[in-house]
Amino acid sequence: LYSDKVMDHFANPRNVGEIPDADGVGEVGNAKCGDIMKMYLKIEDGMIKDVKFKTFGCGAAIATSSIATEMIKGKPIEEALKLTNKAVIEALDGLPPAKIHCSVLAEQAIKAAFADYYTKK
Amino acid sequence: LYSDKVMDHFANPRNVGEIPDADGVGEVGNAKCGDIMKMYLKIEDGMIKDVKFKTFGCGAAIATSSIATEMIKGKPIEEALKLTNKAVIEALDGLPPAKIHCSVLAEQAIKAAFADYYTKK
Ligand code: FES
Repeated sequence: LYSDKVMDHFANPRNVGEIPDADGVGEVGNAKCGDIMKMYLKIEDGMIKDVKFKTFGCGAAIATSSIATEMIKGKPIEEALKLTNKAVIEALDGLPPAKIHCSVLAEQAIKAAFADYYTKK
Repeated sequence: LYSDKVMDHFANPRNVGEIPDADGVGEVGNAKCGDIMKMYLKIEDGMIKDVKFKTFGCGAAIATSSIATEMIKGKPIEEALKLTNKAVIEALDGLPPAKIHCSVLAEQAIKAAFADYYTKK
């Protein structure tokens, strides 16, 4: 049902937690399942210095957020903004169709955190 | 949004895992979100000697299963069979309406595990 990469990121999620002095915080909710995802960004010199997430969502939400944070950490903002949900799912070697609605939380929360960052600036 | 009890059972779920020589195993899926719950029962002299669960589901599914396993562990079968989803939610001091569909997984998986136990006997 789930790929080895999904199970790995579900069992050992990367970058879980909060950043107290985050430069941008994004919180999004999933209309389909009622779950919440919160994303914290620390930005320095146009680069994602640190990123952490917290969620009450399912394994698919955890796995996609975990790999998404890995994909943007240490990258320039412009590159991180280009991250798509499709790229995240491909990096996980796929997800069952019923779980695609969970995976969008990661991309949306990252975009919301950037929006918060630019609003504050 | 979530009660202290929900957050406690989400952060420190009880009875997570598998029972290799289980007397009954129940697996149920959630039509709404595509999640899966697996419940293992060890039964001795008509009592629930041990119970463990595994899920890919969200925090609400984890918290309800965690407290539900605590509520039936060490109890006689007849008592465990009477456990309702309503009692589980009350024991958690409530759940948001959007998460009620996640909580039914625990009750259904326990019933499925008992059905498996009686089929095998
Ligand atoms: S079911 Fe809610 S995030 Fe997956």
